Amino acid sequence: MKVDTKGRLAALRTKMGETGVDLVAIAPGSHMDWLLGFHPHPDERPCLLLIGPEKETFLMPALNADGTREDTDISFHPWSDDEGPEGALMKALSDVGAANAKKVVLDETMRADFALLVLDNLPGAGHAFTTETLGALRMAKDQAEYEALKMNAEIADRAMLKAFDAIAVGKTEREIADVVKAHFASEGASPSFWIVGGGQNGAFPHHQSGERKLQEGDAIVIDIGAKKASYPSDITRMVAVGRPPEGYEEVHAVVEKAVQAALAAARPGVKAKAVDAAARNVIADAGYGEYFVHRTGHGIGIDGHEPPYITATSESVLEEGMTFSIEPGIYLPGRFGIRLEEIVILRADGPEILSTLPRDLHVAKV
Amino acid sequence: MKVDTKGRLAALRTKMGETGVDLVAIAPGSHMDWLLGFHPHPDERPCLLLIGPEKETFLMPALNADGTREDTDISFHPWSDDEGPEGALMKALSDVGAANAKKVVLDETMRADFALLVLDNLPGAGHAFTTETLGALRMAKDQAEYEALKMNAEIADRAMLKAFDAIAVGKTEREIADVVKAHFASEGASPSFWIVGGGQNGAFPHHQSGERKLQEGDAIVIDIGAKKASYPSDITRMVAVGRPPEGYEEVHAVVEKAVQAALAAARPGVKAKAVDAAARNVIADAGYGEYFVHRTGHGIGIDGHEPPYITATSESVLEEGMTFSIEPGIYLPGRFGIRLEEIVILRADGPEILSTLPRDLHVAKV
Repeated sequence: MKVDTKGRLAALRTKMGETGVDLVAIAPGSHMDWLLGFHPHPDERPCLLLIGPEKETFLMPALNADGTREDTDISFHPWSDDEGPEGALMKALSDVGAANAKKVVLDETMRADFALLVLDNLPGAGHAFTTETLGALRMAKDQAEYEALKMNAEIADRAMLKAFDAIAVGKTEREIADVVKAHFASEGASPSFWIVGGGQNGAFPHHQSGERKLQEGDAIVIDIGAKKASYPSDITRMVAVGRPPEGYEEVHAVVEKAVQAALAAARPGVKAKAVDAAARNVIADAGYGEYFVHRTGHGIGIDGHEPPYITATSESVLEEGMTFSIEPGIYLPGRFGIRLEEIVILRADGPEILSTLPRDLHVAKV
Repeated sequence: MKVDTKGRLAALRTKMGETGVDLVAIAPGSHMDWLLGFHPHPDERPCLLLIGPEKETFLMPALNADGTREDTDISFHPWSDDEGPEGALMKALSDVGAANAKKVVLDETMRADFALLVLDNLPGAGHAFTTETLGALRMAKDQAEYEALKMNAEIADRAMLKAFDAIAVGKTEREIADVVKAHFASEGASPSFWIVGGGQNGAFPHHQSGERKLQEGDAIVIDIGAKKASYPSDITRMVAVGRPPEGYEEVHAVVEKAVQAALAAARPGVKAKAVDAAARNVIADAGYGEYFVHRTGHGIGIDGHEPPYITATSESVLEEGMTFSIEPGIYLPGRFGIRLEEIVILRADGPEILSTLPRDLHVAKV
């Protein structure tokens, strides 16, 4: 995707001014992808985009300098393996007017040694992460980002339908996951995760697909995602192998009601915690509060998980254009787990759901 | 691979005692793989193995607790999305006797926000990375690790031969890379990197394979690696498409002589910088010093790049059982690049090379 680097850097500097930040330090990763449309080869050699009040520069491992030069005109402060990065860092900080920075924003995903290289060379500087600057900017998506997310959601819907078709007694979770991965690959998407949790495994929210064979009466959590054109998908639906287990329908209805409550609560100007509360109250009122062990959702963009996080305590104010998941769940140990997940983009009048798949239990014939 | 967690934790505590370290904090990643044989689902939720002088515990996101419990008996201090990690961290630090830690070792690969969560809650504590503790232990490989690396080296040799066979005028670098990736996959190895740098692209040490078509007279750098059974491979060889470019043979001979000098210098008890110097002096004496823009090598184990680093300034003393690359190169901008890379394990009498492929230029027929 073509990125408006100039515009995004200008927006970042406005945020820096508003929040009193002297320096933003970004490592090769998704923040850099959002700003520049690429990132240099990431490894253990400190490589940082340093953004000061008016100028930006790269601390750049010498052996990546020529290759990276093909992607950007931003200046480099190269350092060789022999010299180490410290001298080049000091020059780079001075170059962008941040040699005496008092408030530094660090890319929270950067390696600990990169972060402490910066902080140890700016004694007395306070640190923060990107929540109020880059993170805030990245939350609201532009039209091109929406289209990339919508395209990925459509691919994930088709992968989910392939999973539904593949369900059969005696197949392993891993075999179902393989069908999902193959479908993603066939549409040019790189699979990111492929949770197929059958029976009791479904009660572990982050269970990975294993060698367990599907049995008649299993309720199966299928939570899958992939990435194409730098943007991800993420969807969860439920399948039963024949008749679902005792008590399943009642719990599914509670989770569905929680999804609907969260969808109804999500409006521009509302705090993220109000959306979480809407889902959580439905589940608590039904007597399952202790079995909803995670947040209601997470933002989604270049990163599969990014702000805004839809948690019980999040003061983030939702705005038009934000994209996030709504995915309440109830996990009954030793019995089954149920999660239903939508990705939405917040419009002026409420959330637009990117998937077109119903959230009903899919009953696979046995 | 089955891991002797008890033995490795005991060895780590001996190192902690020797270096005056009160606390080692490890995130989901390769250090944890080496200690425990697994790591929990890594995401933006702080998850840390905290190792004190006598006890260890996990700071554990609540929603991963049940799933991770299947893999370990180590105690958990769980935290939910609503509570946040801080309270559980303070209890965990107290539990392992590190609430007043004065010297903390951080996994250098952990996210910046994990690292600062620990440090901001241990005011006054000094920090270091794993170089003298976990990193030092991981450098010398045991027999099972050697066998895993040897198996991977053999797979990489076969992938390299497939690349040689695929070379032809008009094919793109990417097509050659695809042949390599397919071969790795056919042997159950996950491809990690596939540098195929033809012609002038070969002069960028970290060039990725692109759409450039191979031409008669190209010298091509092929640097490939994959991972099977948690251990990696890494090998670089040179191919010419028909007659190599003007002046190629002389430069290849210099790089080969540099490899041999480094192999001859690498002995237990020798400093890593002496091995780098052996290679670098050969290249400098031949007049190409400024074109050898990177270190001579890097350690290899669970991580493709890990200590010991074979640099001009490294004081690391090489020991029996250490595994590392020897990979000098000469990069002539606008002409061609040459790199020859071996992975070796250091024996009492010198390095054993894991690959069985000769380092001669492979001349592909046109």
